[in-house]
Amino acid sequence: MKAIVNVFLKNGVLDSQGKAVLHALSHHGFESVTDVRVGKQIIVEMDETDSVVAQEKVSHMCEELLANMVIEEYAIEIVA
Amino acid sequence: MKAIVNVFLKNGVLDSQGKAVLHALSHHGFESVTDVRVGKQIIVEMDETDSVVAQEKVSHMCEELLANMVIEEYAIEIVA
Repeated sequence: MKAIVNVFLKNGVLDSQGKAVLHALSHHGFESVTDVRVGKQIIVEMDETDSVVAQEKVSHMCEELLANMVIEEYAIEIVA
Repeated sequence: MKAIVNVFLKNGVLDSQGKAVLHALSHHGFESVTDVRVGKQIIVEMDETDSVVAQEKVSHMCEELLANMVIEEYAIEIVA
């Protein structure tokens, strides 16, 4: 079973990497870009057949290790 | 219009960050995890009404700036 985890900074937390990319894109002639946010995508393959159990395990992984819950939020998608 | 860009290392390129996360998860008791890949997700907001034009522009952004085409590959999803 495969889980796709997206980790992004919470709204209100300055995304300096996103701002840097926005700035760089503007300087490369992509003036139509108005905002950029940069996050992590983590693909987790696991030996697990029950999608509910998988979702729960991946939630624990996020809370314990994959995301910094003070400044980041996560979304999990179980795909197969 | 909003584009979601996922950037991952090409198959065959060592994903050391993914291996480190896999190792850390195993040590945290998540033994069922068999593989982890870590990539970037970049959300680009742009003043563009034509989704075909938007897709083309974001492809150029990826080739020029967002991805390192020697070792990385990207996927673009235009969402709104």
